[in-house]
Amino acid sequence: MPRILDQIEKGNDIKDVNPEDYKALAREIRKFLIKNISKTGGHLASNLGVVELTMALHLSLTFPEDKIVWDVGHQAYTHKILTGRKENFATLRKYEGMSGFPKRTESDCDCFDTGHSSTSISAALGLVKARDLQEQDNTVVAVIGDGALSGGMAFEALNNAARLKTNMIIVLNDNNMSIAENVGGVSNYLGKIRTNQAYLGMKDEIEKTLKSIPKIGDGIVERVRKSKESIKHLFIPGMFFEDMGLTYIGPIDGHNINDLLTAFQTAKKVKGAVIVHVITKKGKGYQLAEKNPTKYHGIDPFDIKTGELLKKSSNRTYTNVYSDMLIELAKKNEKLVTITAAMPTGTGLQAFQQEFPTRCFDVGIAEEHAVTFAAGLAAGGMKPFVTIYSTFLQRAYDQIVHDVCIGNYPVVFALDRAGIVGNDGETHQGVFDLSFLRSVPNMTIIAPKNEKEFEDMLRFCENYNAPIAIRYPRGKVSTCFQNESAPIEYGKAEILTNHGGILLLAVGSMVEVAEEVAKQLEASGRNASVVNARFVKPLDTAMLQQLAETHDTIVTLEENVFSGGFSEEVGAYMTQQGMGGKRFIPVTIPDEFVEHGDPDMLKAKLGLTAEGIMSRILTIN
Amino acid sequence: MPRILDQIEKGNDIKDVNPEDYKALAREIRKFLIKNISKTGGHLASNLGVVELTMALHLSLTFPEDKIVWDVGHQAYTHKILTGRKENFATLRKYEGMSGFPKRTESDCDCFDTGHSSTSISAALGLVKARDLQEQDNTVVAVIGDGALSGGMAFEALNNAARLKTNMIIVLNDNNMSIAENVGGVSNYLGKIRTNQAYLGMKDEIEKTLKSIPKIGDGIVERVRKSKESIKHLFIPGMFFEDMGLTYIGPIDGHNINDLLTAFQTAKKVKGAVIVHVITKKGKGYQLAEKNPTKYHGIDPFDIKTGELLKKSSNRTYTNVYSDMLIELAKKNEKLVTITAAMPTGTGLQAFQQEFPTRCFDVGIAEEHAVTFAAGLAAGGMKPFVTIYSTFLQRAYDQIVHDVCIGNYPVVFALDRAGIVGNDGETHQGVFDLSFLRSVPNMTIIAPKNEKEFEDMLRFCENYNAPIAIRYPRGKVSTCFQNESAPIEYGKAEILTNHGGILLLAVGSMVEVAEEVAKQLEASGRNASVVNARFVKPLDTAMLQQLAETHDTIVTLEENVFSGGFSEEVGAYMTQQGMGGKRFIPVTIPDEFVEHGDPDMLKAKLGLTAEGIMSRILTIN
Repeated sequence: MPRILDQIEKGNDIKDVNPEDYKALAREIRKFLIKNISKTGGHLASNLGVVELTMALHLSLTFPEDKIVWDVGHQAYTHKILTGRKENFATLRKYEGMSGFPKRTESDCDCFDTGHSSTSISAALGLVKARDLQEQDNTVVAVIGDGALSGGMAFEALNNAARLKTNMIIVLNDNNMSIAENVGGVSNYLGKIRTNQAYLGMKDEIEKTLKSIPKIGDGIVERVRKSKESIKHLFIPGMFFEDMGLTYIGPIDGHNINDLLTAFQTAKKVKGAVIVHVITKKGKGYQLAEKNPTKYHGIDPFDIKTGELLKKSSNRTYTNVYSDMLIELAKKNEKLVTITAAMPTGTGLQAFQQEFPTRCFDVGIAEEHAVTFAAGLAAGGMKPFVTIYSTFLQRAYDQIVHDVCIGNYPVVFALDRAGIVGNDGETHQGVFDLSFLRSVPNMTIIAPKNEKEFEDMLRFCENYNAPIAIRYPRGKVSTCFQNESAPIEYGKAEILTNHGGILLLAVGSMVEVAEEVAKQLEASGRNASVVNARFVKPLDTAMLQQLAETHDTIVTLEENVFSGGFSEEVGAYMTQQGMGGKRFIPVTIPDEFVEHGDPDMLKAKLGLTAEGIMSRILTIN
Repeated sequence: MPRILDQIEKGNDIKDVNPEDYKALAREIRKFLIKNISKTGGHLASNLGVVELTMALHLSLTFPEDKIVWDVGHQAYTHKILTGRKENFATLRKYEGMSGFPKRTESDCDCFDTGHSSTSISAALGLVKARDLQEQDNTVVAVIGDGALSGGMAFEALNNAARLKTNMIIVLNDNNMSIAENVGGVSNYLGKIRTNQAYLGMKDEIEKTLKSIPKIGDGIVERVRKSKESIKHLFIPGMFFEDMGLTYIGPIDGHNINDLLTAFQTAKKVKGAVIVHVITKKGKGYQLAEKNPTKYHGIDPFDIKTGELLKKSSNRTYTNVYSDMLIELAKKNEKLVTITAAMPTGTGLQAFQQEFPTRCFDVGIAEEHAVTFAAGLAAGGMKPFVTIYSTFLQRAYDQIVHDVCIGNYPVVFALDRAGIVGNDGETHQGVFDLSFLRSVPNMTIIAPKNEKEFEDMLRFCENYNAPIAIRYPRGKVSTCFQNESAPIEYGKAEILTNHGGILLLAVGSMVEVAEEVAKQLEASGRNASVVNARFVKPLDTAMLQQLAETHDTIVTLEENVFSGGFSEEVGAYMTQQGMGGKRFIPVTIPDEFVEHGDPDMLKAKLGLTAEGIMSRILTIN
């Protein structure tokens, strides 16, 4: 039997599908997603959850005139399937292949690139205002999950959308999950709307009861009805949204296409911002993912039948080390607490959470709050470890400056996924943290070269009594210089080898690369030394001065952009000290956004591997 | 008659005041505030609004055990009066004098320093959790205005506070204003609670009506009461908060001390987070301020009777220029739109707002949303100017990276108050923007030396088709090099004088200082050149290479920290180009937080005046 999916070759083709075939098409899309993602890896559970929702949106809108802004964007696979990108799923998230997120450069049906959470309503509101000012009349939709709704900027945007006098549709995709389970007051609120049919049932019940009263019953019902402002609460779920000035439609079964179509039809007619509250199930249609949506949120290639990963990694990762160490430290230090922003699994804090449930705080997708909350904990005498991916900590820059560093509180920032992250692309690379953290007074910044040093540094952080950030890469721990483990001393670099000639001065993950470069240089008859910077702030200037005497070339190595990073720091220091006559080769991320792809391939492309560095050293030498 | 205020010499002394004298005390405090602020300048309207509220808090709490976190913190003057700092009001906001904000170093009754908006609930929640984990039992209060509630992180914190099982008090100080009038959905929502007595009246009305029904009436009331979840909406205002899991008390008359005391007494007994919704009037008790709270928000010394400023400044400021230019540009360019985050007056956009009401967006205190909203506007074809003080733009770092620069949208960031700002101190200095913006790919950064160039640069921004930031200082325009106005060329510095010897390479406001330094150097028989950098990103490397040939010393001048700033950029470039043998003198803000005080005095202290720079140049020369 020919697949219905085969009829869909570009945007809007879905409109030619016979309504009787909608269910079959949804099944085919799910099958397509499971089959493809099982091979390439990718975001599965969230995409399975929005198949009907995406179909209904595509049936209700016209592309590219109408716009959908996908919050976070990892749930846009069905949207990609319906807009002519089926064939590209083989290259999903691969270098030069299809992105796992919306991408304007991929399709004119993608109107705004996303990756981080909670931005969609703001961006969509901008598109709406631009439309109105230019007197166009397309439809703009933001699709946001209930998890993303805990991010403050989504609320800022809702607050503003409430003032709209023209149409804008906000689809609240409510699956009661972010990557992990949702937490907090908004989740409570949505939960009440979702489950408490009293909101709806009460209306009937009260009306019936009142009406049954002879003679005066009808009058009371009328009277109650007229006192609209207060009585609305009885009849309308989503009353908070209504009170803000938004129109609320829902809750709608997110797997019933007809209900969805009716809701969007209604929503398109409303003047002002409309929230369409859609209830979906993460992982829908694939039993294993329905049961464990966190595991299947973002997943590596797997066996469809068993759900087992095809390549099981037995490698110990920095995240594993962090997970174990924090528990070890917390056992002895009852002041130690940890904070995560909706990432207990990704950051390795899940085990800590189980061991010390009262001392681990998952604040939801809310990095700003996470950091200032930590400052409050520290002000109250605790020792907080804020554990957030490098790229997401960008969202708390002001809180780091204003709430932690001005107060000089002993907050530890553990930056997982620092450096090249890989498949998620531009929005997820952790290549700015050294720059934005270095500028802040009172901040200390360190990075470990290998597992053992990471443990030592975490102990150091525990005992350090002011703000400190420790950055470490995604993935497996390095085993470079395993036997070198000089005690961590504040502000001191670690001189690993000292042979004069070419000084390789590396930060964290790049020490391993420096070791390889040194080997190759020595094999080619050149002298080279390897220094592990350890401290990016403060810079170990004494070490630099000492080694400058015996080295004529200084190579700095870091997984961070040049501007404001370690290399620029060293370069400027050399000028200040009159060492500028030496050769200086900064190995950094270039001043451009780095796309998705395998991290090793990206690093090679960017010249961060031994090969690339060697060629730079040898080119002029 | 002896003043009651004279009895209050330290924290908790207010408890000895006879309750009959509370009103008189409030009057005395207001008189004290008006008299003092009329002399020193400072925040007036907000402080007049919270006199009774602060008194009631001090009567209900015990210091320093109990804690108040003041959101923003400019409303803590009465708190300072009641905690032994009356005598310091003569030095309010002066260098080495009393801060205009809470300061832990000033008093143990100040538990957390603030300055930026919307942080208090997060910090207080941290203090609460620290208290619980250490099994203490003090009371923690966050005092937050309804304006600050539009900031997303306040919402993130409420979302988390909803999960508390122990006591925490959130005082919502609702005066229906931020600095300007409040906007948006939350404001609508609070407005409904505030004004719609139906929320309360309905309860009585319905109960009465139902009860009047013979025989079955009482039964219905009971039945309705039992259906608690839905019927609560009839009886309780602040239902959204309740549904989130917070307890709501209010609305309370914020100028009635007895009502406030009762509310706090109740609040202290509640387990979990309680919102006490207090209605206050900004400027209360000083008619001029009640009528025009925006003018008296932060004010320079004034005449109490007339409200006139004592020193009227006729100086034209950069903000004035911005205000005029944007209107001029917008008249010819209908794509031009402006965005402010609750600062239409401070940023000079008020006139634009009046001229083009549909093209000026005040999004409330919501910098994150402001930036992504601008990205959406730009994606939709408009040309947005986002106008935010340098220090507040820190809050939108991630949105600048993720939403504007990855998409490479033509958003203009107009950073008012860049550099040393002065009286507001650490939290308000705009000395990090060059650092956090430089690291971002696709960003261009410029700064004008004087009024004419500012106008030229704004025209340049209008025509530039990618992200660009223009930073300019608080206060009056410079008249330096008035006759020099080479056209702005992308990436090109402006060589103002070229005499060899000492190269003074200055950014924006520091060009004026460089001119003075050059004069003094030349008077002392040394050659000096002045270059206006214009572009901080990209650096004009061709100019540097050219001038390096005829200059032996390079002095960089900027009102930004060294790390990641212009000076570090130049210093590192010199090393890269082998110019490191030259003398390099970076004049920057040091790596520490700069306290409050008169900007000129602060600049002298920090070595940013001609005198300080001369002495550095001459010391080693």
